[in-house]
Amino acid sequence: MSLEFLHIVMVGTKFAENVGSAARACANMGCPNLTLVRPVNWDEDRARSLATGTGQEVLRRMRIVETLEEAVQDMVAVYGATARGGGWRKGILTPAKAAPLIHEVMQQAEPVAILFGPEDRGLTNEETSICSRLVTIPTASEHTSLNVSQAVMVFLYECFVKSPGPVFRPAGPPESRLATHGERETLYVTLQSTLTDMDFLKGDNPDYWMLPVRRFLERTPLRRHEFNLIMGMCRQVQWLLGMKQK
Amino acid sequence: MSLEFLHIVMVGTKFAENVGSAARACANMGCPNLTLVRPVNWDEDRARSLATGTGQEVLRRMRIVETLEEAVQDMVAVYGATARGGGWRKGILTPAKAAPLIHEVMQQAEPVAILFGPEDRGLTNEETSICSRLVTIPTASEHTSLNVSQAVMVFLYECFVKSPGPVFRPAGPPESRLATHGERETLYVTLQSTLTDMDFLKGDNPDYWMLPVRRFLERTPLRRHEFNLIMGMCRQVQWLLGMKQK
Repeated sequence: MSLEFLHIVMVGTKFAENVGSAARACANMGCPNLTLVRPVNWDEDRARSLATGTGQEVLRRMRIVETLEEAVQDMVAVYGATARGGGWRKGILTPAKAAPLIHEVMQQAEPVAILFGPEDRGLTNEETSICSRLVTIPTASEHTSLNVSQAVMVFLYECFVKSPGPVFRPAGPPESRLATHGERETLYVTLQSTLTDMDFLKGDNPDYWMLPVRRFLERTPLRRHEFNLIMGMCRQVQWLLGMKQK
Repeated sequence: MSLEFLHIVMVGTKFAENVGSAARACANMGCPNLTLVRPVNWDEDRARSLATGTGQEVLRRMRIVETLEEAVQDMVAVYGATARGGGWRKGILTPAKAAPLIHEVMQQAEPVAILFGPEDRGLTNEETSICSRLVTIPTASEHTSLNVSQAVMVFLYECFVKSPGPVFRPAGPPESRLATHGERETLYVTLQSTLTDMDFLKGDNPDYWMLPVRRFLERTPLRRHEFNLIMGMCRQVQWLLGMKQK
């Protein structure tokens, strides 16, 4: 499921670069809806430069409105991103906790907004008062505030990865299957006899000397092509030993 | 648990603003270690302006080095952030899957690096070849690339929220320490020459044939005594080859 019903609303943003970065983030995560409420010193060119090719379409579709009311008019849920907690701001969520709630609404094909305040002060109490819930991104220190476009990215990322839609499959060919227990045992037997033949394992108690080798290999999920790789090395050593005897 | 053992390494970054934003993100999530490898048109003032008050300390501590080798020499695990899959880039992780693995190492008070390539091209195959694992941030479209400082934030955020709390100190005798990147490289060089001498690796392009061996060993946190173990096997094979020539 995409984020087509998610609306990023930036209130009183002061730096057009942050809008550009937010637009790019929207494009990255498949959210087509960006709205600005009373941007300060709005500069479309500065925004475009940071949106890069990726975010241009989001900027083109972007709405600029005068009041927060206009921006959230048609939303069925409004989440407020805030760095400040405490006071009456109770039951603040983390983005990870908010994402499933946001998807619940979006899955009914209903629009949801996330509000982000100005760089310097964040959302006012009046602005947060219209929010269904407040969400705070966990940070290392209470007094460290995120760049607003970084905050937008974190919310989009959480909503995207928590999306109940098709699971993300990283690019690239699939890994070869894992070696079976039987293949592992075959490998240990071959390794042990090879290492013994090459006088690496003490003849008296090879099982004991083999233990660290086993433990090392047991720690890794061994893939089939890696099983073949190590077996091949053993065969080669055995061949060398044969040569030597000649 | 904090991210004190995490190292953000930015390779060939072209825009100092991205370094500044990354430094602020590091401060937000409590990661004190930022390293630049061969930054292009480095401009400290531009970086400082985007780091804002929050990121200044990270910028002050930041290392600038000439080679990637220098940057990761002491790391016990190196993760590569890449938007590109395919080719030999198998088993690519998501940040959510990588974070617990990264914490596994950090909980042993061992340093871990995450590499980020230049804005325009990302990490080269040569650069990713030294990585333990590759990690790709899921995006809406395969061909959309994140701003590098946004990507840094997503990784830091995942590592921060997946943080398992205080560093775990196991009782009883400590395991032998993990091998450093430097020791791993020594091991690969020795293995490659040994496998070449025993005609296991094709002479024409040993680096290429060596890749699966490297990737297999990179997947496991190699302990110092295991490093000695494999080095010993190589010495023994070399000795056998010497015998054979006689």
